[in-house]
Amino acid sequence: MANSSVTKATLCRVPQYLSFLKDLPAEEFKHVSATYISRELELGEVQVRKDLKAISGEGKPKLGYVTQELIGKLEDCLGCNKVTSAVLVGAGKLGKALLDYDGFEKFGVKIIAAFDSNETVLNLKGKIEILPIRQFESFCKANSIKLGIITVGEGSAQTVCNQMVASGITAIWNFAPCQLNIPDEILIQNENLALSLAHLNNKLCNK
Amino acid sequence: MANSSVTKATLCRVPQYLSFLKDLPAEEFKHVSATYISRELELGEVQVRKDLKAISGEGKPKLGYVTQELIGKLEDCLGCNKVTSAVLVGAGKLGKALLDYDGFEKFGVKIIAAFDSNETVLNLKGKIEILPIRQFESFCKANSIKLGIITVGEGSAQTVCNQMVASGITAIWNFAPCQLNIPDEILIQNENLALSLAHLNNKLCNK
Repeated sequence: MANSSVTKATLCRVPQYLSFLKDLPAEEFKHVSATYISRELELGEVQVRKDLKAISGEGKPKLGYVTQELIGKLEDCLGCNKVTSAVLVGAGKLGKALLDYDGFEKFGVKIIAAFDSNETVLNLKGKIEILPIRQFESFCKANSIKLGIITVGEGSAQTVCNQMVASGITAIWNFAPCQLNIPDEILIQNENLALSLAHLNNKLCNK
Repeated sequence: MANSSVTKATLCRVPQYLSFLKDLPAEEFKHVSATYISRELELGEVQVRKDLKAISGEGKPKLGYVTQELIGKLEDCLGCNKVTSAVLVGAGKLGKALLDYDGFEKFGVKIIAAFDSNETVLNLKGKIEILPIRQFESFCKANSIKLGIITVGEGSAQTVCNQMVASGITAIWNFAPCQLNIPDEILIQNENLALSLAHLNNKLCNK
């Protein structure tokens, strides 16, 4: 599939391409070229060409891309046309900040429930329910959840990870600052915010 | 400087190297080799060799690295020996989650104040004060702040960014989901959480 190899940097520019293409008068722009897009968006042409190729294959010589088709592929790539349901474990400050963030749906992910072992943070009335962790496995199985978000501390992250794998989750977004042991077939993306900041600080100190 | 080129992936392993090296009996391990470290930590030898070379240059043939020197370089790399003061603008849920996180200091960064334009979130009694935004520039100049964290929404991010640059900040960690216009000499690291999740979801959907 063309977009299986889309990098994060490319994905980053997709919303920009989409909003530009959707604003073009449809009659006038049945086709659109990478050259035109790059010029209008003031992006490097090589980069735009590479992005579009990864997402939608090669354009036609001289004509470029069929605009509507390209829009469709860009939307597929963002997952706009299909929403993946996700669950979050750990409703502390970071977890709540993520629950509160409404930008995920635009990118095809909807957090449909959160779980915590601390009974005092449970909330069955919020926009997204915070449920007791003992309901986790049955909830995930009943809803065929494939994507899990870990926002618990380092000490409980491996346990939560194991529960996720046992519940059928195959992609994990991990905010706990530690390496998790997971089976090879599970996708994991570690989001260590402290390391991210350390990286910027390292560059600052060596400027 | 050796560690100016340290990648985020390398930086990620530095805490692991450090805790391993600090646990070695000092008398017995005046020197330590990349081979030994890689075997004990079950990491690929090529990777360990590359990491240590980026941080501390080449080891001596046969002997490896002087353990204490290597520990020093690893600590320098994490910024353990020198703390960079940072400020944060935008004390919403995400901002507060970051203020609450105590893992940054381990990596050489200390958030010393937060700012918000919303008077209702000001807090002069917390562990980290939340001050009115009008005090931002004078505070940064008085404290020679070089590192700023943006956790406001997309709509105010560019304004905050401009204020940071005008206040002498030279490295920005941006959580607002947008591209900021900044002078070339300013370091910027964009942390778009939605894109990060979209990237994982994209891999999941194409599995």
